[in-house]
Amino acid sequence: MYRPQIKVLDCTIRDGGLINNHYFSDEFVREAYRALSKSGIDYMEMGYRSSKELCPTKEFGAWKYCDDEKIREIIDGIESNMKISIMVDAHRVREQTFAPKDQSPVHMIRVATYVKDIDKAIDLAKRTKDLGYETCVNIMAISRESEFAMIEALDQLAKTNVDCVYVVDSYGALYCEQIEYLVKLYKEHVPGKEVGIHAHNNQQLAFSNTIEGIIHNANYLDASLFGIGRGPGNCCLELLLGFLKNPKFNLSPILKFIQDYMLPLREQIEWGYIIPYMLTGILNEHPRAAIAYRETPNKDQYAEFYERLLEGVIDE
Amino acid sequence: MYRPQIKVLDCTIRDGGLINNHYFSDEFVREAYRALSKSGIDYMEMGYRSSKELCPTKEFGAWKYCDDEKIREIIDGIESNMKISIMVDAHRVREQTFAPKDQSPVHMIRVATYVKDIDKAIDLAKRTKDLGYETCVNIMAISRESEFAMIEALDQLAKTNVDCVYVVDSYGALYCEQIEYLVKLYKEHVPGKEVGIHAHNNQQLAFSNTIEGIIHNANYLDASLFGIGRGPGNCCLELLLGFLKNPKFNLSPILKFIQDYMLPLREQIEWGYIIPYMLTGILNEHPRAAIAYRETPNKDQYAEFYERLLEGVIDE
Repeated sequence: MYRPQIKVLDCTIRDGGLINNHYFSDEFVREAYRALSKSGIDYMEMGYRSSKELCPTKEFGAWKYCDDEKIREIIDGIESNMKISIMVDAHRVREQTFAPKDQSPVHMIRVATYVKDIDKAIDLAKRTKDLGYETCVNIMAISRESEFAMIEALDQLAKTNVDCVYVVDSYGALYCEQIEYLVKLYKEHVPGKEVGIHAHNNQQLAFSNTIEGIIHNANYLDASLFGIGRGPGNCCLELLLGFLKNPKFNLSPILKFIQDYMLPLREQIEWGYIIPYMLTGILNEHPRAAIAYRETPNKDQYAEFYERLLEGVIDE
Repeated sequence: MYRPQIKVLDCTIRDGGLINNHYFSDEFVREAYRALSKSGIDYMEMGYRSSKELCPTKEFGAWKYCDDEKIREIIDGIESNMKISIMVDAHRVREQTFAPKDQSPVHMIRVATYVKDIDKAIDLAKRTKDLGYETCVNIMAISRESEFAMIEALDQLAKTNVDCVYVVDSYGALYCEQIEYLVKLYKEHVPGKEVGIHAHNNQQLAFSNTIEGIIHNANYLDASLFGIGRGPGNCCLELLLGFLKNPKFNLSPILKFIQDYMLPLREQIEWGYIIPYMLTGILNEHPRAAIAYRETPNKDQYAEFYERLLEGVIDE
């Protein structure tokens, strides 16, 4: 699929940070930045800009906050045309500050929001857009939203100067036909804006759903190295590059990084195809029950976990 | 997707046998048979009926041959409505015999063939159909076949009494749009016959491509427990059951089998998302180079393997 408008965003450090409290070594982030730059990736998402009041710095690594200075330190001296994005949770904005774009190494601010917080998201997106940043709004957990509420949120976004609106399958619950439906719904309700897709891999559908998004004209595509991300993780960047035929992309630097950095990391933390996350995906549930279960000695008692999950669903 | 015509075939023992020379313990096969029966699976493929002249019995386990007697021994005493299938390679038929259907525990013979061996496949399918078996012809490696040759083979199959013809993505190279194209091509050229799909998971597309097949009216669906199969393996049966809404299926017995038998097995043999197999998939190559590379001390030197593979492709 060669479509020059397509932008690939690597969310390794940001989404991967959810499973290691955002503690990546400087070397890891620096070498990822180097490899992604060499591979021609359009954006690298460095992490969150979280409130230090709400999220005390003694509990998290640097990539929970993404201070401009920290980012500068990491990228210093590395040749790159890649842009940098950071994410902010719309419902967790407190004292965080944003320098004007021309004084920051960051190019894009992505606002993550639930439909119910869409007003907060729009407010933050406007604020950062006015400072000169590109802006995205990522609407999370849409597999559990009513269509009525979704459309209302999209219609509000249509009136803003946000650049891109994302379909986010937080629960890894959506099948290709639903992705088609949602991307078309977005295209209809936010005309003139780009549509993005961020898929989770609970059911091994993150890559195929991203392709489905591409087919229906989503141009902003999230992926991560070796699929790292919470639970089952995300669309694998290496798969996505294999599919996209844009000659600007180069797979080799990424393969090298995976062998040198991602394999050792996976010895320490788990992600990938893990049955409890598959089950929350099938049942369209938040992965929190699976996360908790994986911390218990019974973590591989899949049948028991499934029965409990069904009971929980019934109880709701 | 509730379509009563859909038949699910578990190929755990058959495709999984390719990575352990068909050595599964009797207990493993028996408990798999029990779990699959309880889960409402339509067919269980027990393995190959290979020639003992071509494949000496000292080199392989029982499931390379699938003698009727051996199968009877395994299923004895287990309540089940599940049918049993076995596979035969069209190009490796020698002295193998097939009892008349009513004297055998086997219900279906699946003939695996390359396009070039289609005459042999048709001959064997006819022979076994005449003995009373259901018959399938699985056309392998179609991602490398010319459309002209494919259509010729399909047109020949249309004139036979074969029950079902399979789209087989041996190299795990096909994307959803190609699956759509091929399933429609099959439906057009073998009218009145069922179409099946057997996908490989090199690019994490086995499940989504199986769904794509379902959408375009493939009714015979191959899958395996925890996705076991050569290299990246197959479509995961547990994912497929999560998608299919036919109330006859029950996920729990399968989850139990995965935790009790598949997890320990994966400690001994590897399958799943492994980068060298991903790369052969992307390049539409037979996995043999990846299989060989995984046996070397450099097995995780992905960038090097990729460069070699590209050279090989260029050399061809």
